[in-house]
Amino acid sequence: MSQIPYKIYLSESEIPAAWYNVRAEMKNDIAPMLNPGTKKPVTLSDLEPVFCTELAKQELNNTDKFIEIPEEVRNFYKMYRPSPLVRAYCLEKALDTPAHIYYKYEGGNTSGSHKLNSAIAQAYYAKKQGLKGLTTETGAGQWGTALAMACGYFGLSLKVFMVKCSAEQKPFRKAVMETYGASVTPSPSMETEVGRQINKMYPNSTGSLGTAISEAVEVAVTSEGTRYALGSVLNQVLLHQTIIGLEAGKALEKIGEYPDIVIGCAGGGSNLGGLMAPFISDRINGRRNPYFIAVEPASCPSLTRGRFGYDFCDTGHVTPLAKMYTLGNGFIPSSSHAGGLRYHGMSSILSQLYHDGYLDEARSVTQTDVFAAAKQFARVEGILPAPESAHAIRVAIDEALKCKESGEQKTILFGLTGTGYFDMTAYMSYNSGTMSDYIPSDEDLERGFATMPSIEE
Amino acid sequence: MSQIPYKIYLSESEIPAAWYNVRAEMKNDIAPMLNPGTKKPVTLSDLEPVFCTELAKQELNNTDKFIEIPEEVRNFYKMYRPSPLVRAYCLEKALDTPAHIYYKYEGGNTSGSHKLNSAIAQAYYAKKQGLKGLTTETGAGQWGTALAMACGYFGLSLKVFMVKCSAEQKPFRKAVMETYGASVTPSPSMETEVGRQINKMYPNSTGSLGTAISEAVEVAVTSEGTRYALGSVLNQVLLHQTIIGLEAGKALEKIGEYPDIVIGCAGGGSNLGGLMAPFISDRINGRRNPYFIAVEPASCPSLTRGRFGYDFCDTGHVTPLAKMYTLGNGFIPSSSHAGGLRYHGMSSILSQLYHDGYLDEARSVTQTDVFAAAKQFARVEGILPAPESAHAIRVAIDEALKCKESGEQKTILFGLTGTGYFDMTAYMSYNSGTMSDYIPSDEDLERGFATMPSIEE
Repeated sequence: MSQIPYKIYLSESEIPAAWYNVRAEMKNDIAPMLNPGTKKPVTLSDLEPVFCTELAKQELNNTDKFIEIPEEVRNFYKMYRPSPLVRAYCLEKALDTPAHIYYKYEGGNTSGSHKLNSAIAQAYYAKKQGLKGLTTETGAGQWGTALAMACGYFGLSLKVFMVKCSAEQKPFRKAVMETYGASVTPSPSMETEVGRQINKMYPNSTGSLGTAISEAVEVAVTSEGTRYALGSVLNQVLLHQTIIGLEAGKALEKIGEYPDIVIGCAGGGSNLGGLMAPFISDRINGRRNPYFIAVEPASCPSLTRGRFGYDFCDTGHVTPLAKMYTLGNGFIPSSSHAGGLRYHGMSSILSQLYHDGYLDEARSVTQTDVFAAAKQFARVEGILPAPESAHAIRVAIDEALKCKESGEQKTILFGLTGTGYFDMTAYMSYNSGTMSDYIPSDEDLERGFATMPSIEE
Repeated sequence: MSQIPYKIYLSESEIPAAWYNVRAEMKNDIAPMLNPGTKKPVTLSDLEPVFCTELAKQELNNTDKFIEIPEEVRNFYKMYRPSPLVRAYCLEKALDTPAHIYYKYEGGNTSGSHKLNSAIAQAYYAKKQGLKGLTTETGAGQWGTALAMACGYFGLSLKVFMVKCSAEQKPFRKAVMETYGASVTPSPSMETEVGRQINKMYPNSTGSLGTAISEAVEVAVTSEGTRYALGSVLNQVLLHQTIIGLEAGKALEKIGEYPDIVIGCAGGGSNLGGLMAPFISDRINGRRNPYFIAVEPASCPSLTRGRFGYDFCDTGHVTPLAKMYTLGNGFIPSSSHAGGLRYHGMSSILSQLYHDGYLDEARSVTQTDVFAAAKQFARVEGILPAPESAHAIRVAIDEALKCKESGEQKTILFGLTGTGYFDMTAYMSYNSGTMSDYIPSDEDLERGFATMPSIEE
């Protein structure tokens, strides 16, 4: 057989026709989301004021193993998918490792990340339902950009609440969203009840995803013909992101490879959850035994130091409660941490898989270690990674170096979720040696846990 | 036959093994470059202090139709090539045109443009010659980023002179270059003789490519083990960029298409010159009759309003003289113009082809019209284009709309040379309605022409 190419592309006709719904196969399904008022499991009618109906149905679906991707969404996917699966030959050489390193590269579209996979689906269902527009939050900015592109494509209005410290660090992100027609408001703002309250309680708040979510939900439920869209955490988002793993699985099959280790960064968890399909299906059904690693920042360690219990998805307590690994909805991540992955909770699906041992390991890493890996990767592989993605690169490099020591020729697959073009402030901080690491103390964490609601299960 | 896909990819084994040297086929070869001191045609030994030897040979080569691409360069190409040829279905639909619109997308690598195609070749030859490092200039920043990536990859040092107004507008471009290990100096600087002179003559100079070139050449020829690299204009650069057209030609052949119209933006001319191969070969040899359009900014109209004659390639008169369409080496483009394409001259090869009627048409467009096209394209095709590339989009849209009127189903190919992620200041200016158009007066042009040297031919 000839050498495996640097980039393995599927043809457009091989783009999966359906998303994979892991809930239909999980040994233990996730605990139901609870209505924040009644504390009873949410129903479709609870969710419909917030999400469009079709997405609310996807959110609750735990029976259909596959959910068809609408043709309009598949056609949009064809503008930037299938994304390449890349053999990191140059990185392998630089590390002098016997490991085979592959990454699924999702940064090749203008949103700069995998977020577009779910954004276009969510905008499509909103358009189909005849809505006027959407609201959302964005942290590092990838999700807001992706949803702005998707709403621009379908002619929907979009209001984005952007985490304040990120909006200040990334004026150009804001400009991209506006170029696609979105309006962008730094959060916490004075435009919502929730925002005003948080500004009053924490006058110097630099914002958090949790707060921005509260603001976006408030505007969605109080505006005519408007719904809310979220870029991570939710079951529906993880569902849409399975396109990543399904494509990666097909591409690896073409070249006769199967991953021993699957690595993804985890903020809300949807990218890793998406990359894990179909390998998690193999694992659940006993067909294969890949090892899964979630990588999170030491500054926001939901899986490695969080608690598994019910919590609000937002700071303002307007969203349903979800059972998940969480640092407490009142946990405010340090603004010294660059980029995303600053969310207090974690996808319920990933949380349950972690609790049950299917997601094998969570590992937290400091940001200076992450940027060292980012620069090393950029120099040899050419791509300047997003800080979020570089968390996965850090662990992929570490695992490849273990292979060098042990002599094992493992196959490593990681998700390169996005590019760092809008994160140069963080790179400049790292380049100049002024970047610091922040690890919350146990007391910091206790303060966060104290904000979790008390729910009897 | 099934529908043509959105993206046509070649396999890595189909990456061309050789660049195409159009000079070997031109009916009238370009006039020789002249030594700036003696005004005699330059020899290899004239060029060797400036360029590495292999590149100097390529610069003078007018006999070999194909020049082999070294294996190391081909391997680097495999990290980001073949680039996709994209069928712009969504744009066609939005325009309601019978035209088939294709674009060759070169923005999918971290330099954000086609510049990497020549950067990696130039760095490779420098490394092979045992040099320590390179110097260069950059305008919008793509070339500097590309050469920083290439030098980072081969472990060469790199000093970049960045046009001052661009360095001020794009601090993050500078940061990307530094992340790859380059040092970046705004030009005109006080570090060179030429820079000090220009700062003295024009204390408020915002810089130009011509000045930055002078500075970079001065440092190259006065530093041990260092040579100069240029990102456009030169024959060698156009040669390396033929990879674009050669790939596009193969991809179109696969789907049974041939371009009626080939459109590229033209600053120094290497991207358009590269895209035109192999179609220009068909044209010269009478096999096919594609129509070529060069698009340039109305603010820097080298082809449409320039003179065809000998001129210096730089403002400081340290480079050889080339016969080309030029506005005069003393022409300083308005700093109100966003992005690149601000060069006073034009590739000698393109100039000669234009003079001889093989490059059929040059068209100048204003930047507000260009940004209108950029936004329209971004909304429907998803990709946020670089302002430079958007010049080609403008004319592609105009030609497609003509097809709508006439009912002709022409096949249009244009070069989408790069992305606009680092050009958000310009987009913000356009979005806010504060962008203005600048068209030089005849008097402005006369002042530029007056700086051309007097050469008897």
